[in-house]
Amino acid sequence: MISNDTIVALATPSGAGAIAVIRISGKEAITIASSVFQSVSGKDITKQRTHTLHLGHIVDDNKVLDQVLLSLFKGTNSYTGENTVEISCHGSTYIQQQIIQLLLRKGCRMAQAGEFTLRSFLNGKMDLSQAEAVADLIASDNEASHQIAMQQMRGGFSNEIAKLREELLNFASLIELELDFAEEDVEFADRTAFHELVNRIEFVLKRLIDSFAVGNVIKNGIPVAIVGEPNVGKSTLLNALLNEERAIVSDIAGTTRDTIEDELVIDGIGFRFIDTAGIRDTQDVVESIGIKKTFEKMEQAQVVVYLFDSSEYKALGSQLQTEIQKIKNQFPLKPLVIIGNKADKLTDTEVAELKTLIPEILLISAKEKLGVDELKKELLSFVNTGALRNNETIVTNTRHYDSLLKALEEIQKVKWGLQNNLSSDLMAIDIRQALYYFGEITGQVTNDELLGNIFANFCIGK
Amino acid sequence: MISNDTIVALATPSGAGAIAVIRISGKEAITIASSVFQSVSGKDITKQRTHTLHLGHIVDDNKVLDQVLLSLFKGTNSYTGENTVEISCHGSTYIQQQIIQLLLRKGCRMAQAGEFTLRSFLNGKMDLSQAEAVADLIASDNEASHQIAMQQMRGGFSNEIAKLREELLNFASLIELELDFAEEDVEFADRTAFHELVNRIEFVLKRLIDSFAVGNVIKNGIPVAIVGEPNVGKSTLLNALLNEERAIVSDIAGTTRDTIEDELVIDGIGFRFIDTAGIRDTQDVVESIGIKKTFEKMEQAQVVVYLFDSSEYKALGSQLQTEIQKIKNQFPLKPLVIIGNKADKLTDTEVAELKTLIPEILLISAKEKLGVDELKKELLSFVNTGALRNNETIVTNTRHYDSLLKALEEIQKVKWGLQNNLSSDLMAIDIRQALYYFGEITGQVTNDELLGNIFANFCIGK
Repeated sequence: MISNDTIVALATPSGAGAIAVIRISGKEAITIASSVFQSVSGKDITKQRTHTLHLGHIVDDNKVLDQVLLSLFKGTNSYTGENTVEISCHGSTYIQQQIIQLLLRKGCRMAQAGEFTLRSFLNGKMDLSQAEAVADLIASDNEASHQIAMQQMRGGFSNEIAKLREELLNFASLIELELDFAEEDVEFADRTAFHELVNRIEFVLKRLIDSFAVGNVIKNGIPVAIVGEPNVGKSTLLNALLNEERAIVSDIAGTTRDTIEDELVIDGIGFRFIDTAGIRDTQDVVESIGIKKTFEKMEQAQVVVYLFDSSEYKALGSQLQTEIQKIKNQFPLKPLVIIGNKADKLTDTEVAELKTLIPEILLISAKEKLGVDELKKELLSFVNTGALRNNETIVTNTRHYDSLLKALEEIQKVKWGLQNNLSSDLMAIDIRQALYYFGEITGQVTNDELLGNIFANFCIGK
Repeated sequence: MISNDTIVALATPSGAGAIAVIRISGKEAITIASSVFQSVSGKDITKQRTHTLHLGHIVDDNKVLDQVLLSLFKGTNSYTGENTVEISCHGSTYIQQQIIQLLLRKGCRMAQAGEFTLRSFLNGKMDLSQAEAVADLIASDNEASHQIAMQQMRGGFSNEIAKLREELLNFASLIELELDFAEEDVEFADRTAFHELVNRIEFVLKRLIDSFAVGNVIKNGIPVAIVGEPNVGKSTLLNALLNEERAIVSDIAGTTRDTIEDELVIDGIGFRFIDTAGIRDTQDVVESIGIKKTFEKMEQAQVVVYLFDSSEYKALGSQLQTEIQKIKNQFPLKPLVIIGNKADKLTDTEVAELKTLIPEILLISAKEKLGVDELKKELLSFVNTGALRNNETIVTNTRHYDSLLKALEEIQKVKWGLQNNLSSDLMAIDIRQALYYFGEITGQVTNDELLGNIFANFCIGK
């Protein structure tokens, strides 16, 4: 999979901006760049030091394409671990194309998605889980997903795995040594200490595996189903939740992104709100299909929000409790938030009565922004932010999760073997297998297909 | 207008990409950047040399926001002529926002559109017409507009103006000297040499003013009205013209831009094709309105293409020549290309007959791509590419055009004065006024409102 050719790609988003950055990496990166670059000061960039910037022109056959800034990274001191040049040019699409075409003619080839990071991994600049974190970091759109990706990119997860792997490896060597002295029936590996280690590994693996439930949800946003009839104020509620976050973004011109109305970030955690049609009983066949769909959406959600117009609670009568009970029966373990909206219309007596009827009710007024903060707190309470706040390692990647599950299985076999005095040679097989799965996560064990799958999900230019 | 504060903006296009670049400029740029940047090697960036690159982390209160590359430009050695720092971070919108927000908290303010280039101008790094060329360069989307912007940015236009201005200034000094010796009736300024100079300036100004017709059209694309009934093959023709150019673009992933179907680049020159409804005679009132609109569109176009189905020429009979004559009568001076499409259906005899009927006819088959190259050549022949190929200065900017017109008017007054032996004091006024208009172009003469208007058209971050 290692290739020696020189690759080029646009590293900044496509489209016009003030500047664009074109990245070149490979053995010939500096030679090729120097063949199209004329430094303003007349310097030969092949003779300049690493990590220096040079103003000059990109010249194609005496025709000046652009005035650019060229960043020089020599040898292993670059992102990829190869000679790298970054050309910061004017952000016209035409100029970007012309420069890239010129570099292609001079011997570069277009980089594939993620190929710069792949090279970084292959050149030992980062391990596989760190490389994967780069893609997660670029995709991160809220504090929590950003923090997890950042921690993983900085090696938090790898270190945890590497430490376990090393300790396990030490024992494995001792166990394998025993095999060489099989006839003498010696025990180099202290079984008690080994048992302790295996327990510790099992504990850590279980914690990491458990963290995936939170991690996966944080990475993709926590799905919340909003169950409520029309006109109970669903969109007003979403807007009220959204408002604050929007204000932060809007004062930075040029960085405002298109907001998907039903995705929002509360205290750094992403939530995806799924609108449903409600579950009011009806004889109508079409409506019944609607109710079935609502239940399907609730099934997929992590949290269900039941929203109703509290000013109509008398008219609703027993129907209110029937509906709530129906949800509870269907999903006894799923967190349910019961919200009475338009509470600004209620008298104190009515508030008291409603609270007696439904003790867990949260009374809000989305329009008047009353109770919105309480709702945010309640939604956050369902996310295990403890691990996040304590900077614990959180697994977000399905591939890592799979490897951890397999490693756990092997460790549990080792544990069983220890408890049942299994022979060293059989135990060695399970240990080696556990080590294999650890290695899969960090990339000590890998293959082209796996790498292909991982890096195909990257963007071009990274 | 000069402000000392430190400005920040995203310099790359908004949205997610592999990397993004955040630019900071101003007296405190390096100090502010160093307060949020921790170099991996532990270096203090305030003590590093200009034009160096540093790997490190952006840290907000012990929380790592991103691993970044920081480019350092000290003092006047930067684009703006001030201390400048560029932060190359991971391309997540979230990260971009977080870093910019952090820098704002640390004392930067959001840059206005074009403010980096404005500072570059105010700090004497470029003159006003060069600054304007930066915006043109970013907006350039074909070879011709790119070449003109590039030439202007590199000072081609400014040099031409500056040279005329200097020569005129020399004479102005001599003339003004005469005023001091007015009573002695001496002539320091050689009237013959002055006359020659004024003639030369007049000639150059006229050439530059004339170039605007080409320049403006090249900058915005040359409007071509296609006149033809439905089903004569208008869209097939556009696709045939477009085909070649598209192929060049499509092999560079990530740089393909949305193509506006009726805008296309032929040999580096942009053309805008305007579809019309044709001018077939009809009794129908609605259709008559259509014909009126077609003539309006022809009026606006630089070139008219009359397209008909050549395989139907016998059925069309005299109508064909009547329509062509109608266009010629209406626009006797406008270039007209008469195209008989679907010529692959014609026999040799029919081809010969058609060529006798309409000697200037261009027979093509858009479907079979026959004759398309000839059409391209014909279209290009209407563009004065001579100036472009000879690297002559071409004026594309309406503001420059206005100043040149005013300067010409003043120079012609000076010329009249010379011919009519006008007194030095009166001539001095006209010369000073001409110098004023020259200065307007390069920015020696300027005011806040003018600068505001110019830089408001820039993008943020440039």
